[in-house]
Amino acid sequence: MDEYRQLWLKGAIIYAINLVSKGFKVVGIGLGERDFYVDIESDSILNLEEAKEFAKPSNNEYKINDNKLLYGNQEIALNEKITPSGDPQYFEILNISVHHPSPDKQYVRIRGVSFETEEQLKDYLSWLEKASETDHRIIGEKLDLFSFHDEVGSGLPLFHPKGQIIRNELMDYMREINASMGYQEVYTSHVYRSMLWKISGHYFMYKDKMLIFNQEDDELGIKPMNCPAHIMIFKSRSRSYRDLPVRFSEFGTVYRWEKKGELYGLLRVRGFTQDDGHVFLTEDQIKDEVKILISKTLEVLGKFGFSSNDVRLNLSTRPDESIGSDQLWEKATSALESALKELKLNYVVKDKEGAFYGPKIDFDIRDSLGRWWQLSTIQVDFNLPERFKLEYTDKDGSKKRPVMIHRAIYGTLDRFMAILLEHFRGKLPTWLSPVQVRVLPVNQSVQEYAKTLLSEMLKEKIRAELDDGDTLAKRIKRAYDEAVPYIVVVGRKEMENGTLTVRSRGNVERVIDAKQFISLLKREIVDRDLSNTAVSNS
Amino acid sequence: MDEYRQLWLKGAIIYAINLVSKGFKVVGIGLGERDFYVDIESDSILNLEEAKEFAKPSNNEYKINDNKLLYGNQEIALNEKITPSGDPQYFEILNISVHHPSPDKQYVRIRGVSFETEEQLKDYLSWLEKASETDHRIIGEKLDLFSFHDEVGSGLPLFHPKGQIIRNELMDYMREINASMGYQEVYTSHVYRSMLWKISGHYFMYKDKMLIFNQEDDELGIKPMNCPAHIMIFKSRSRSYRDLPVRFSEFGTVYRWEKKGELYGLLRVRGFTQDDGHVFLTEDQIKDEVKILISKTLEVLGKFGFSSNDVRLNLSTRPDESIGSDQLWEKATSALESALKELKLNYVVKDKEGAFYGPKIDFDIRDSLGRWWQLSTIQVDFNLPERFKLEYTDKDGSKKRPVMIHRAIYGTLDRFMAILLEHFRGKLPTWLSPVQVRVLPVNQSVQEYAKTLLSEMLKEKIRAELDDGDTLAKRIKRAYDEAVPYIVVVGRKEMENGTLTVRSRGNVERVIDAKQFISLLKREIVDRDLSNTAVSNS
Repeated sequence: MDEYRQLWLKGAIIYAINLVSKGFKVVGIGLGERDFYVDIESDSILNLEEAKEFAKPSNNEYKINDNKLLYGNQEIALNEKITPSGDPQYFEILNISVHHPSPDKQYVRIRGVSFETEEQLKDYLSWLEKASETDHRIIGEKLDLFSFHDEVGSGLPLFHPKGQIIRNELMDYMREINASMGYQEVYTSHVYRSMLWKISGHYFMYKDKMLIFNQEDDELGIKPMNCPAHIMIFKSRSRSYRDLPVRFSEFGTVYRWEKKGELYGLLRVRGFTQDDGHVFLTEDQIKDEVKILISKTLEVLGKFGFSSNDVRLNLSTRPDESIGSDQLWEKATSALESALKELKLNYVVKDKEGAFYGPKIDFDIRDSLGRWWQLSTIQVDFNLPERFKLEYTDKDGSKKRPVMIHRAIYGTLDRFMAILLEHFRGKLPTWLSPVQVRVLPVNQSVQEYAKTLLSEMLKEKIRAELDDGDTLAKRIKRAYDEAVPYIVVVGRKEMENGTLTVRSRGNVERVIDAKQFISLLKREIVDRDLSNTAVSNS
Repeated sequence: MDEYRQLWLKGAIIYAINLVSKGFKVVGIGLGERDFYVDIESDSILNLEEAKEFAKPSNNEYKINDNKLLYGNQEIALNEKITPSGDPQYFEILNISVHHPSPDKQYVRIRGVSFETEEQLKDYLSWLEKASETDHRIIGEKLDLFSFHDEVGSGLPLFHPKGQIIRNELMDYMREINASMGYQEVYTSHVYRSMLWKISGHYFMYKDKMLIFNQEDDELGIKPMNCPAHIMIFKSRSRSYRDLPVRFSEFGTVYRWEKKGELYGLLRVRGFTQDDGHVFLTEDQIKDEVKILISKTLEVLGKFGFSSNDVRLNLSTRPDESIGSDQLWEKATSALESALKELKLNYVVKDKEGAFYGPKIDFDIRDSLGRWWQLSTIQVDFNLPERFKLEYTDKDGSKKRPVMIHRAIYGTLDRFMAILLEHFRGKLPTWLSPVQVRVLPVNQSVQEYAKTLLSEMLKEKIRAELDDGDTLAKRIKRAYDEAVPYIVVVGRKEMENGTLTVRSRGNVERVIDAKQFISLLKREIVDRDLSNTAVSNS
């Protein structure tokens, strides 16, 4: 789209001047990644219709001087060094947002594009539609899942109600998986004395990514990892060999100050939630524990449609610089290797690519666009048990040091959600969809029937909504745009027969008994099916 | 207990010298709130039995000089200014914990008491047992719910698996309550640019309690409240009158740096989780919204046994310094008042005690020990909508400013848990109990039957455990000490008849059909009954 940048800048100037002529206080003009923007200072937000009114060609005289647009007696900051050019005739306003450049000022940012021909505009819009199908940032905005704000800070997402539904569904599923492996969930602080990070060593190895600061006469640090907190819980009472393995899990939100230039939507953020877990166990227990972890990880990935062809396992071995005895490394590495072999899995050995504190197994997955992502990880750790002097009492009464395993299956909820949104092009499986059914009565006369259906679905904890505004066609399009898996249309005939007409993805349309549909749908959700089995099974 | 402090210090010195004689490196001696402590430097933790071995009278010579204990060629820090005295003969070791005075050192702290007569010791232990029944800090430790650590920082609790079960149960229940009122759950960052706190005004009004710090070339602050984040979500799209009230809820963990001396267990902490909620609505919607909120709050409090006699409602009105027009104050205050009156509730008017930004209703509750606690709150806010320039589009297309309501029903999960633990003396209702049933087979021959019962309970998501170690009497005592609501004993007779013998609190013992018990128990849990209805209804 680079060829249009000068044209867009020209369009932005025209649009800005149109606004100024109507009395708006325009304060800035510039270009985004794929559009222009015009900032106005205003205590009130324009809506899209209002903003579109000013999006048309005009021929007002202006000058550009020293990165300023001069129009009449106005000076407007021009945040671009390229020269505007061309003769834009066709405009589209795409988005309106608002931010505070200072605590008492509000800027409304209007984003749009401009082209010389209608065809260019059409081409752009269809390109945008296609691009937005696989860009989780655009899907997230369209589906109202999350947002980033200048006032909040880069890389710090806020999850909206529909995004939080997805997070909660992912967490509920992981809670089941964790419980089936014997994990116990804990909850730990986000803020700690630096002392803890000095004991763990993060203070020395990880300081450049940590938020560390002074408060009163102490130094504090926000957690970049949950392990030291879990260790404190492990240490809070004496542990016997009978208690091992001790398994703690936490949906822990951690903060790592990545470079601003490296941040990218939910794929690379500064604050994120890990589906974290730590196992305290004996050396002899490593193999069985890892076997279970690998199997469960593959089960979870399979649930999202990543089959064994889409998963690559890597075993990383002892690097040149490492801690821990030869014997311990050998034992742990061969435990990981045996686990993989006994499960008859293919894997790649990444020679000397383990962490300094132990060997590990990583899972790469391939999404529907053929891209590989590093997701799940299982890491053996000899270091932290040593630093924290962890102990358990063995059968003979002697004190021994346990080994630790760090593991995450999703990796992080944030990144996993981004990958899912792109993998499914926003069309999430029903169990993950914020809205699972949209009920559309064809007219007022079947309103009551539609409401009865709705309340029966809600009773079954199906996330159903009624949409009775607008024409049927518009409502169907809206539900489709919002990626609702089931669009239920009810008219006179459906009411009389106790049926409904349901359209699932792939546009399969079926007339089906209402009760049967609800019970099949309920089953699809409880089973966390990947496809729309409520219709295909009926 | 103050009369024993000199005697305890003497006992601590004797105990310390006993340890030194056995080669331990004692580094400090002092007094706690109700015991003495002796710190040893050790990479290994002693267990209670080991520590008790050294707890006996001895007559070694020692000197005290300048807050140091001198014994042989050893110097041990004496962290107390009072003079040790008396002739302790009876010792009890109460607790062992471990902390790091510096990143590479570990101290084991042994707590105990000492007395001259056996009677004094018995009296103390029975006093301690009684005191610990209503002290949530001791209950929390005994039931393994949460812990505080020197390395983590004062006022920053870590929740153990059993504590997290209680938190999750409280959250699940509040999720249901919130959903029934139309709240939508969100999730927001803990870290924000200071810009946000300047817009909200917290930066100026609340700075001394906030964690604010510089990172790169920006200033950041950890959230002391969730409201500004919810406002950013509200502002992320344009809102119409049809959308209002918009209701966001969040279990938001916030940080407020209270003075160290004011911290107290979970009742006053620095990091805590609010069951927070914010409503964006029109002035005309205040009354109905508040009515529903009051009713639901009373319903929730009733669920924990706080009847209307135990709840006091306070209406706080406009203070001398305030923002917002006369008309707005009048309208909002009379909306709150009408809500209370229409619900036919008694309330106390706290004249001029409202916040500067709006009137409010607070709920005080009285616990089983007759103490009053301030818990739930409903606050109207005219200020933040103004500062953030919030808007919705009214019917006629005009832009209007919504009002906000802040509300919390539990207040915070942490403080509410502390109050519940004291209110119930640790004996939580079954639905909140981390362990709901302990199954005790009388001997090996009924092991299989016990396991079958266990697995049937687990299938029904009852948190049941099997205990087959030790004598039956010891196992019953253990279950009782851990406040397990149902102790199920099975022997030969029970196995043959498909029954079980269940002992509930209050020591009601019943023989009951196993299937029937499980189904009644399941019902008790799902209904969140206060009392042990599974036995009383059978």
